[in-house]
Amino acid sequence: MDFEFELIHEDKKTGARAGKITTPHGTVDTPVFAPVGTQATVKTLAPRDLEEMGAGMLLANTYHLALRPGTDIIKEAGGLHRFMHWDGPILTDSGGYQVLSLATLRKISEEGVHFQSHIDGSHRFFSPEEVIKIERILGADIIMPLDECPSYPCEYDYARTSMEMTCRWAERSKEAHSAGTDNPVSNGQALFGIIQGSFYPDLRKECIRRLVEMNFAGYALGGMSVGEAKASTYEVLDYSTPLLPRDKPRYLMGMGKPADLVESVKRGIDIFDCAHPTRCGRNGTAFTSSGKVVVKNAVYAHQFVPLDEDCHCYTCSHFTRAYLRHLFATNEILGLRLNTYHNLFFYTQLMGKMRQAILEDRFSEFEKEFFLKYSKNIKD
Amino acid sequence: MDFEFELIHEDKKTGARAGKITTPHGTVDTPVFAPVGTQATVKTLAPRDLEEMGAGMLLANTYHLALRPGTDIIKEAGGLHRFMHWDGPILTDSGGYQVLSLATLRKISEEGVHFQSHIDGSHRFFSPEEVIKIERILGADIIMPLDECPSYPCEYDYARTSMEMTCRWAERSKEAHSAGTDNPVSNGQALFGIIQGSFYPDLRKECIRRLVEMNFAGYALGGMSVGEAKASTYEVLDYSTPLLPRDKPRYLMGMGKPADLVESVKRGIDIFDCAHPTRCGRNGTAFTSSGKVVVKNAVYAHQFVPLDEDCHCYTCSHFTRAYLRHLFATNEILGLRLNTYHNLFFYTQLMGKMRQAILEDRFSEFEKEFFLKYSKNIKD
Repeated sequence: MDFEFELIHEDKKTGARAGKITTPHGTVDTPVFAPVGTQATVKTLAPRDLEEMGAGMLLANTYHLALRPGTDIIKEAGGLHRFMHWDGPILTDSGGYQVLSLATLRKISEEGVHFQSHIDGSHRFFSPEEVIKIERILGADIIMPLDECPSYPCEYDYARTSMEMTCRWAERSKEAHSAGTDNPVSNGQALFGIIQGSFYPDLRKECIRRLVEMNFAGYALGGMSVGEAKASTYEVLDYSTPLLPRDKPRYLMGMGKPADLVESVKRGIDIFDCAHPTRCGRNGTAFTSSGKVVVKNAVYAHQFVPLDEDCHCYTCSHFTRAYLRHLFATNEILGLRLNTYHNLFFYTQLMGKMRQAILEDRFSEFEKEFFLKYSKNIKD
Repeated sequence: MDFEFELIHEDKKTGARAGKITTPHGTVDTPVFAPVGTQATVKTLAPRDLEEMGAGMLLANTYHLALRPGTDIIKEAGGLHRFMHWDGPILTDSGGYQVLSLATLRKISEEGVHFQSHIDGSHRFFSPEEVIKIERILGADIIMPLDECPSYPCEYDYARTSMEMTCRWAERSKEAHSAGTDNPVSNGQALFGIIQGSFYPDLRKECIRRLVEMNFAGYALGGMSVGEAKASTYEVLDYSTPLLPRDKPRYLMGMGKPADLVESVKRGIDIFDCAHPTRCGRNGTAFTSSGKVVVKNAVYAHQFVPLDEDCHCYTCSHFTRAYLRHLFATNEILGLRLNTYHNLFFYTQLMGKMRQAILEDRFSEFEKEFFLKYSKNIKD
């Protein structure tokens, strides 16, 4: 089965949408949150944990996997799905963001990016064509083209030049991927376009216009969550999503605190990825329906209740805050694992609840209830 | 149901025995290997992983748990089983070994051991009575009395004095546990005796004689695996097990490389614990039917086969050596977890195969086959 997006319902009072993505590795209900499996593993969790919690799709990082284990090994393994034993849909980013944030001595030109690996200092080169080639080997269901993600804040002129190059790179990526046809789906892989333009509405809008003209299988908002105020992010969403084709999925890259998810689904986003829930899981912070719980804190040492009374995940149905606090206090890996499991379960449930609310045209009410309870403790 | 040991079968040609231990938390087939759950968790694994692989019994450490989270918290939780959510049998050691190996500024007297916590330097005191009190709070099914574990090598005079004190401590422990009755099972907890005497046969034999006279629910060989040659260990087993009551379980404390398990079961040991399989799991060493595999080594980067072709554990049925090697190369926690899972599964299977061989009076043949295959690569 090839890639397909079906828009099932639009909430009557907000921009929120419920849909379904079909891929060669199964279907995913949207809105969906894709746990981050940077190095071909969602940190601390096994594939069966992710299946059990109903994680619909995983994100893996092209940059990281190209460096380690390297594309030769993943090719020999028969692709990323088989290598990591995840049979569901996978999305790979292009490495553009990581080249900018991790690699050293990078040199960006029209041709592509020369950089040194942050692991061993080896010299590497990513061009739009090279990235498509790597992603074809990885074999993800949704793939992203190489883009330039400008840092924040960014001068207007740089942002324009950069956005224009990102558009040209997108065109080269499409050409490399689709071999001259218009179809953005090739080899079972759906190529998305990435919208850049920093926080300049005219640049973002122009980028959208150009990319939509090129016809991608979906559209991603890139260059967000780079240090800007939340209001700026939401503003970009407010003017961007109405310009995007209704019948294509929309992906907000790398953003996803619980509040972000709700605010962005409301503005018409369908796909998310973010390291936040897994990173917090390992740092001892749990998300609950009534806000964050920093479970490693001493205050939880005597609390013989679950992380979240409303949660029925493996962690919450078997272990107490006191036990988790003990695991964090003694640096036990099981603590990282149980807390990560809970956080991703919380995210999965949250996406499911939002979808249900959309289908029932009560997203605004859901949003109100969510924040009323969630924000009692903390704001994000 | 109270504690009970049933000797089911003795191998016709060796000292190997198959039995069954009944406890208030279920039954365990012997010989059994108890994974080490030092701090109320078997490192990297969740209780359901251990259930799935058929781990019969866990070991937890009195010393570690008394320091963190402390007995007050475990008491509030309703005991160790509930605290860590493990419903099967648990065995707690006495802390004697840890006081000697971890604690600082210890002062041993007839009364007990004064020491400083290796965590926070706090002053603590363990007496035989205090340890029984802690273990009653922990609530394990099998409990060990405080003993002195002399270092190796040990002068004869020290070894004698120490063994004699260990016997007096054993008597005080029994008194504290059984409140004047002869029954070594009290409050559902079975108290074992620990045999010391360094590597002096007359001391070991005298210790056995004294402890057997006191009537314990089982007997443990302590003070082993302290740096002595393997031949010395096996020699102690050779002359000790024939002196122990046939109808009581025998526990070899803290020893358990795969070869040790086979050699010791042959000599009549029923219960084992050892950090070796879990520690190796985290260090990137896997046990397989044809010897050890140091999976973190580069040589495995291109091996798209399971750790052990003969193994049907979750790790081996889903992941390749190449993937595990990648996880170790990138410091991913899932690598530690999958490898630990496999190692304990290997141990569980090994114990099960030995039991089957005993029941069929072919332990010698099993031993021969095992070493023929296992020692092709490496000796331990």
